[in-house]
Amino acid sequence: MLHLFLCCLALLLSPAKPDPDPLQDYCVADNKTPQSVFINGVPCINPNLASASHFKTSVLGKPAKTSGNPFGFNVTLTGVANLPGVNTMGLIMVRGDIASNGLIPPHSHPRASEVTICLTGSVLVGFVDTSSNPALVLSGLNSQNPGTQITSLAAFTSNPLIPDEVLRKAFQINGQDIAKIHKNLGG
Amino acid sequence: MLHLFLCCLALLLSPAKPDPDPLQDYCVADNKTPQSVFINGVPCINPNLASASHFKTSVLGKPAKTSGNPFGFNVTLTGVANLPGVNTMGLIMVRGDIASNGLIPPHSHPRASEVTICLTGSVLVGFVDTSSNPALVLSGLNSQNPGTQITSLAAFTSNPLIPDEVLRKAFQINGQDIAKIHKNLGG
Amino acid sequence: MLHLFLCCLALLLSPAKPDPDPLQDYCVADNKTPQSVFINGVPCINPNLASASHFKTSVLGKPAKTSGNPFGFNVTLTGVANLPGVNTMGLIMVRGDIASNGLIPPHSHPRASEVTICLTGSVLVGFVDTSSNPALVLSGLNSQNPGTQITSLAAFTSNPLIPDEVLRKAFQINGQDIAKIHKNLGG
Amino acid sequence: MLHLFLCCLALLLSPAKPDPDPLQDYCVADNKTPQSVFINGVPCINPNLASASHFKTSVLGKPAKTSGNPFGFNVTLTGVANLPGVNTMGLIMVRGDIASNGLIPPHSHPRASEVTICLTGSVLVGFVDTSSNPALVLSGLNSQNPGTQITSLAAFTSNPLIPDEVLRKAFQINGQDIAKIHKNLGG
Amino acid sequence: MLHLFLCCLALLLSPAKPDPDPLQDYCVADNKTPQSVFINGVPCINPNLASASHFKTSVLGKPAKTSGNPFGFNVTLTGVANLPGVNTMGLIMVRGDIASNGLIPPHSHPRASEVTICLTGSVLVGFVDTSSNPALVLSGLNSQNPGTQITSLAAFTSNPLIPDEVLRKAFQINGQDIAKIHKNLGG
Amino acid sequence: MLHLFLCCLALLLSPAKPDPDPLQDYCVADNKTPQSVFINGVPCINPNLASASHFKTSVLGKPAKTSGNPFGFNVTLTGVANLPGVNTMGLIMVRGDIASNGLIPPHSHPRASEVTICLTGSVLVGFVDTSSNPALVLSGLNSQNPGTQITSLAAFTSNPLIPDEVLRKAFQINGQDIAKIHKNLGG
Repeated sequence: MLHLFLCCLALLLSPAKPDPDPLQDYCVADNKTPQSVFINGVPCINPNLASASHFKTSVLGKPAKTSGNPFGFNVTLTGVANLPGVNTMGLIMVRGDIASNGLIPPHSHPRASEVTICLTGSVLVGFVDTSSNPALVLSGLNSQNPGTQITSLAAFTSNPLIPDEVLRKAFQINGQDIAKIHKNLGG
Repeated sequence: MLHLFLCCLALLLSPAKPDPDPLQDYCVADNKTPQSVFINGVPCINPNLASASHFKTSVLGKPAKTSGNPFGFNVTLTGVANLPGVNTMGLIMVRGDIASNGLIPPHSHPRASEVTICLTGSVLVGFVDTSSNPALVLSGLNSQNPGTQITSLAAFTSNPLIPDEVLRKAFQINGQDIAKIHKNLGG
Repeated sequence: MLHLFLCCLALLLSPAKPDPDPLQDYCVADNKTPQSVFINGVPCINPNLASASHFKTSVLGKPAKTSGNPFGFNVTLTGVANLPGVNTMGLIMVRGDIASNGLIPPHSHPRASEVTICLTGSVLVGFVDTSSNPALVLSGLNSQNPGTQITSLAAFTSNPLIPDEVLRKAFQINGQDIAKIHKNLGG
Repeated sequence: MLHLFLCCLALLLSPAKPDPDPLQDYCVADNKTPQSVFINGVPCINPNLASASHFKTSVLGKPAKTSGNPFGFNVTLTGVANLPGVNTMGLIMVRGDIASNGLIPPHSHPRASEVTICLTGSVLVGFVDTSSNPALVLSGLNSQNPGTQITSLAAFTSNPLIPDEVLRKAFQINGQDIAKIHKNLGG
Repeated sequence: MLHLFLCCLALLLSPAKPDPDPLQDYCVADNKTPQSVFINGVPCINPNLASASHFKTSVLGKPAKTSGNPFGFNVTLTGVANLPGVNTMGLIMVRGDIASNGLIPPHSHPRASEVTICLTGSVLVGFVDTSSNPALVLSGLNSQNPGTQITSLAAFTSNPLIPDEVLRKAFQINGQDIAKIHKNLGG
Repeated sequence: MLHLFLCCLALLLSPAKPDPDPLQDYCVADNKTPQSVFINGVPCINPNLASASHFKTSVLGKPAKTSGNPFGFNVTLTGVANLPGVNTMGLIMVRGDIASNGLIPPHSHPRASEVTICLTGSVLVGFVDTSSNPALVLSGLNSQNPGTQITSLAAFTSNPLIPDEVLRKAFQINGQDIAKIHKNLGG
């Protein structure tokens, strides 16, 4: 119960922020490099060049390595980069792999709401989650680019770093604490 | 290729129509009966009464019977009725069970975009889909109430029925054809 | 009563999907060919080049031929192609000409609501409509590009075609029925 | 050219301000008196009580008297009061009757864009319009409640009145001028 | 009371018209000249080139001259021209300097709501305001480009001019009155 | 430079999330207790009862005590509680008082963008800010209820608390560190 109530709080950080409405049937993202024009969103390819391949991806079918970070998780997103047909559609789907005793650390999505379903393992959901077996979750988010900010990384490993004086006051810790957290988080 | 291009067309029927933005952290749907006030959306309970149970559901964990209709499929939705915390959040998740050789018939969602992932079996996606093994798909839709209209049922089994004269012209068929389709579709 | 209630159902297929808000006074569509940049919507001309001619059209003043299709109707739209000043304005007006005993077949607009007024003749409105005299209707739609999908044509004359197996199941008809409908609809 | 360019300016006063999206198929306005709850928009009736009559009106079919004001025009709106089914649909249609040499004075719609078609007579469109024959225009507006503010009436006949000192400075006129305008406008 | 109620009316002219949602973290306005592409809003620079200077401005710190117009006021806006980081953010802040006995004449913002705070002096707020001491007000508006139309200038000094016949009828004044107002307003 | 770039990052946490559009001129919040109906937003009073007092407040004129928290700041909001006329208008203004060497700790607004102006003192802006003299800032936010989440308080003093195991992993600290931070933050 406790953790589930926390879960609802996590959703509260970024409720239902929809993207602008599309103005045509589709607007397949133009991922060419270098990009010639930058706009709110992503320019499209000539619609006459749209094909089936722009609307499918198998990227969510593969487990992602959970050992490359101190938290034991990994997230695989669909987005305009690997699913260009989703451009202007206003929602994506995300796969989360969580190692045994791993967690997806406290985070927020500034541009989307999130609904999550657990496919395998068991997950304690709240602000954060932990699990005694590897787990697989799928999330839907109602933006093509929801953004993610992990609280601890944003506070202690941003670039440039937040001044020590600010962190000391905000977390009521001392400079040694800050240095230790910074180092442990891989900063 | 053929069917995948059709798939993209299916998305085109209802691209990215977001719900209005929420004006508070949450607004748990008030599902009491009888409803005293009707508005655009659903009234909420007193926020002080919100609890963890409003934000979780196990309804997507259970296979749904695919034998009760001529198409061999069934759809299980999350929504304000079984997940009241999703009210004003602007997205839901849907489970689709498809029998061997079943299909989800051509349809549109007038109030949402849809992104679908196939979890088991294989599914031919397009306007419609068929499968030689039972299949399970999960869809995210960016509305709390996306609406669904199955083309064939809407045309031939609406209540009240569309006048025969209209169906004869629209589909260029005769009255006997209409009666047969109506009966076969369970009308 | 019957048909009017159907009429309300027709509206239900595509309620009130507004376009994104404009960010400036006007943004006259740049209809030059070839188009150099594709975006959500249509790029604009240099605002210093906007003139009165971009904001008027007489295209709705002329009856359209209703004999070129099996339904006996024709639709004339205003849009960014013939009224470039309407770009980003979020609504258009449409003229519908209906021959005696013609009809506008069942359809939906995935990106707009519709309000219709009958100027001459009488029209039975519902999902579809029929008329014993030529009729003229005017509709307002709240999108600059509402999209239209005629149910019977989408199901039986799409390109590429929906596989027969799907149509057989969806409409509970056989392959000969499908071939006949396809041919009669001009597919 | 002159007046048409003015016409585009008039549109600029209130481009494309869409209503929030609907969250259900329809939400027929509850016009009962006295109203028990006030919200952003209008509460709805129980959807089970919706009927065909809520979705039609013949109010636009009748000419309106143009002699009751100094301008020689009259406007008939559809809206939630006489077409309750339009609630949450996000657009309305308006009939404008203009006497010979009448005009619809300079105005703005703070919550909608407007597209206008002239059905009979000829109308000089700009900020304002004049006509040597009676004219009939139809306008679509993309809000269920677009609002209208006639510039001259708002400035000189508001209730309470704008202080004379302000009008003297804003229009660079004297107190006698103000009194004369106020009286002539029927204030 | 009188004037404060007028103040609320002034707000009514342009309530809460939000800009479209951003689709990325920031989209710094590309103010280069000549502009190669015109869209709804403003194109952005390459996000890799964003720097701190794009997100700050000291333009609101300086009093603006109030003697260059017949009203005794001046307005300093932040916007994409002098604060390019505000592009797609959906709100700006505005400084208003008002001379003794000056006023900000009746106006509307077609694309934004406005909230105003008086920092020095005293201001009588309504449709318009006057002041016996110099005053300084700060306003927040929820658009990156709210637009402003001053009623008296729009009616009498537009380019091209509104035809005399229209102004005569709209304001119930004669041609000499119009010529005088036009001249006094600096037309 | 460093801190200003951080400032832009802070804005990135919650860019431009507009409220839904209003559907009438005003909708003064009904602050009566107990509230009978809960909706997305706040119900309104009968519009006939709106008065000037609903549209003004002097709450931003008074300095707020900065000594009641470990950070040395205080924030005074306008909102539907003390400025009921702002309901449905989609923006508010906020006063921030900062003591010498105080700071507004790292935070995000999940439902609004923010533009800030410094009126007195000097403020180092970034994710967080510090000041050697008392400072006064004014912020505009484009929501009537922007929400605020202070990072450190949300992580370490939520109710119920985030499980220690999660905080240990997320911040890579031990249980004693957590207990110390919790206590110092007044948890």
